[in-house]
Amino acid sequence: MFEINETHDPNLRSWIDSANAPDTDFPIQNLPFCHFVYETNKEGYAWSAVWSVGVAIGNQILNLFGCAEDGLFDKFEKLGEVEIFLENLIYYQSEAADTLFKFRRQLIDLLREGVSQELQQKVSRHLYPITNCTFDLPFEIGDYTDFYCSIFHATNVGSMFRPDNPLLPNYKYIPIGYHGRASSIVVSGTDVKRPKGQNRADQNAPPVFIPCKNLDYEMEVGFFVGKGNNLGESIPLAEAEDHIFGLCLVNDWSARDIQSWEYQPLGPFLAKNFATTVSPFVVTMEALAPFRAPAFERPDGDPAPLDYLSGEENQKRGGLDINLEVYIQTEKMRAENIAPHLLSRSNMKDLYWTIGQMLAHHASNGCNLQTGDLMATGTVSGREKHERGCLLELTWRGTEPIELPSGEQRRFLEDGDEVIMKAFCEREGFRRIGFGECRGRILPAE
Amino acid sequence: MFEINETHDPNLRSWIDSANAPDTDFPIQNLPFCHFVYETNKEGYAWSAVWSVGVAIGNQILNLFGCAEDGLFDKFEKLGEVEIFLENLIYYQSEAADTLFKFRRQLIDLLREGVSQELQQKVSRHLYPITNCTFDLPFEIGDYTDFYCSIFHATNVGSMFRPDNPLLPNYKYIPIGYHGRASSIVVSGTDVKRPKGQNRADQNAPPVFIPCKNLDYEMEVGFFVGKGNNLGESIPLAEAEDHIFGLCLVNDWSARDIQSWEYQPLGPFLAKNFATTVSPFVVTMEALAPFRAPAFERPDGDPAPLDYLSGEENQKRGGLDINLEVYIQTEKMRAENIAPHLLSRSNMKDLYWTIGQMLAHHASNGCNLQTGDLMATGTVSGREKHERGCLLELTWRGTEPIELPSGEQRRFLEDGDEVIMKAFCEREGFRRIGFGECRGRILPAE
Repeated sequence: MFEINETHDPNLRSWIDSANAPDTDFPIQNLPFCHFVYETNKEGYAWSAVWSVGVAIGNQILNLFGCAEDGLFDKFEKLGEVEIFLENLIYYQSEAADTLFKFRRQLIDLLREGVSQELQQKVSRHLYPITNCTFDLPFEIGDYTDFYCSIFHATNVGSMFRPDNPLLPNYKYIPIGYHGRASSIVVSGTDVKRPKGQNRADQNAPPVFIPCKNLDYEMEVGFFVGKGNNLGESIPLAEAEDHIFGLCLVNDWSARDIQSWEYQPLGPFLAKNFATTVSPFVVTMEALAPFRAPAFERPDGDPAPLDYLSGEENQKRGGLDINLEVYIQTEKMRAENIAPHLLSRSNMKDLYWTIGQMLAHHASNGCNLQTGDLMATGTVSGREKHERGCLLELTWRGTEPIELPSGEQRRFLEDGDEVIMKAFCEREGFRRIGFGECRGRILPAE
Repeated sequence: MFEINETHDPNLRSWIDSANAPDTDFPIQNLPFCHFVYETNKEGYAWSAVWSVGVAIGNQILNLFGCAEDGLFDKFEKLGEVEIFLENLIYYQSEAADTLFKFRRQLIDLLREGVSQELQQKVSRHLYPITNCTFDLPFEIGDYTDFYCSIFHATNVGSMFRPDNPLLPNYKYIPIGYHGRASSIVVSGTDVKRPKGQNRADQNAPPVFIPCKNLDYEMEVGFFVGKGNNLGESIPLAEAEDHIFGLCLVNDWSARDIQSWEYQPLGPFLAKNFATTVSPFVVTMEALAPFRAPAFERPDGDPAPLDYLSGEENQKRGGLDINLEVYIQTEKMRAENIAPHLLSRSNMKDLYWTIGQMLAHHASNGCNLQTGDLMATGTVSGREKHERGCLLELTWRGTEPIELPSGEQRRFLEDGDEVIMKAFCEREGFRRIGFGECRGRILPAE
């Protein structure tokens, strides 16, 4: 597992001032990767867009392709094949396990306070204000898997649909997951059109095909596969985190009325695959080292995980202490300049299964994971009402509407609503690091 | 929809003799596409492997890259970007709807009886015996969706698990489907390792993590997406087939013991994603035009499909009359030279939903389909016992073992068993066309 080291030193500062602000998501201790495009107007030619891989630092994006071309990564010459920069880094990690860590140190050596004016000038040429950048998905996502690892979410949802039997007997043995749709994963800021689908609210009549009535979000954390494994080979739990590159935020938009009618017996399908939004920044496992937490403490009477999902390290610090927040801003709120309204605050450490267990379980049958695959935790809810990570839970299936500061109510999402997810890690003695935002606004059905 | 035309004329013959044999899968009326590699030994250099796109004709593969380089596709100059040959064809189809049909005619003009000796010589340089070729997946598969569209299969399986309520109320309204794993799709001939997983055969003890005990195959038909659609745009049923490039065979290997324990509430996961085998040849919708059938005749009392899944053309000939066969050959049978044993014979026209309905439903919420995506029908079973497309049904959950000509019995698959799937279309007044084979042999768990 990833250890705390000199790159997490809270006294480490950058010559980029905005990275030293106490409330920035992106101090020099974070350095999350992204895939971005900036606009250039070189030598009088027309403006053109150039896609690149970047790292967020304060309010800037450092263009890694540009740095590589300028020879600033002297220890990483082979990275020059710019089209697949991150994939190359991960590939070379299979040759030398510490590649990603070395690259992190190389970045810090370019960005930390005290480097020469000359180097600062060289690096400055490759900095772009975040507000001038457009982001895309950090990886080309081959396969997307969504888990269901909050026992509080599973119990809440289960008790609405099966009051006598809210939690199914497999839940405490299996990190329950299912395959999602990769093609409809979009990056933060992409509008989401309300889907149409079959609705059978009236059990005494045939279903009708209409715009979704109970549109919801789900606050999840995603993690990207770094190194893959071959088909037929499993990944032991102790090695699972070596295959995780980093984390992002995921909004697993859900059409609840479509879902409840379609999901048996093979699981959610059209209720989920119309869009899934991810935040553009991948916060690396290295950056998260100070924010590890013990795995979920199973209450007395819960079974221990089977051997292939058990490990001392996992038990001691397989969890992650990440604060998650969901905000909503309606059309009326925007018009009246009312700030986004906080809907929930939960924490990833309350998940019943760790991301290591999820990944080890996924590969336990020999399923091959590939660089860039995305996995998500499922809705992260906590014990308390204000920790519920979706409207289905927060409004208890719409029966307890939420009051907004605009005087409006919400049972489920309405057209024009924007959902904004944020996340950050805080710990005494360390710099706060953040995840940026995962935003999406609802457009009306056609 | 695709019409019968001069390319289906049964009197059309090829100057390649093997294509005129009455029992060939690949007469000149078929021309399925594949992705293959052949070995070359040009000019004394070492043998090297070159991947290419090909078309099967008799017992030969025609190398399309080679033909393109030689200028044999005079009407398709833009196809020269050989790396993504099929994708290019499909791309140009969006510009001119009849691109694929024109290309089919161009191929026939190269291969039919009566063309000049000079042209035959030119084309011959690009022919390779099938037995010398190695095949890969025909497309890079972005997303894979598996449906559940045989009402006979769904009723059989449902009655084992829910005797009182075998068919769920949504079945006759929704072409039920779920997302599968794209990374573990392999081409015919790839060995399949028996997966390990959680088994809870003993309900009074905790589950155990052991090699799968009830390993099964599922006989399915796959179809590849040609033209895609944009996120947020649906595809009307009347246009659905314009988005289907062609069909292949699919073996959806299934670990039944893992499946029954894990599948609630989100559907099958590790029970299916350890491997899915597809046949290498894509039989085009053009080639299948003579073998269209009416959609399934719903018995009195069944509801009509909702409007977005209804259409006169679909009703009249949305089905496909394709004969499907499954064979098994055990290790002992191979040792004793006993031919593969026929397990079942079913027909795709017995599916409750057409492939057009499956695709239109998939995109009905705006989900974006992409070129190369694979969809599969689900197990194709018929009314009769000999038409059951998997062992779960054939042996009724293992309670009625199958007797093999070697004196062996099978409830589920054992190590060393090879499953061989075949398919063909026959109709009075037309040439028989076939799909080639979809094979896979079971290796022991590690």
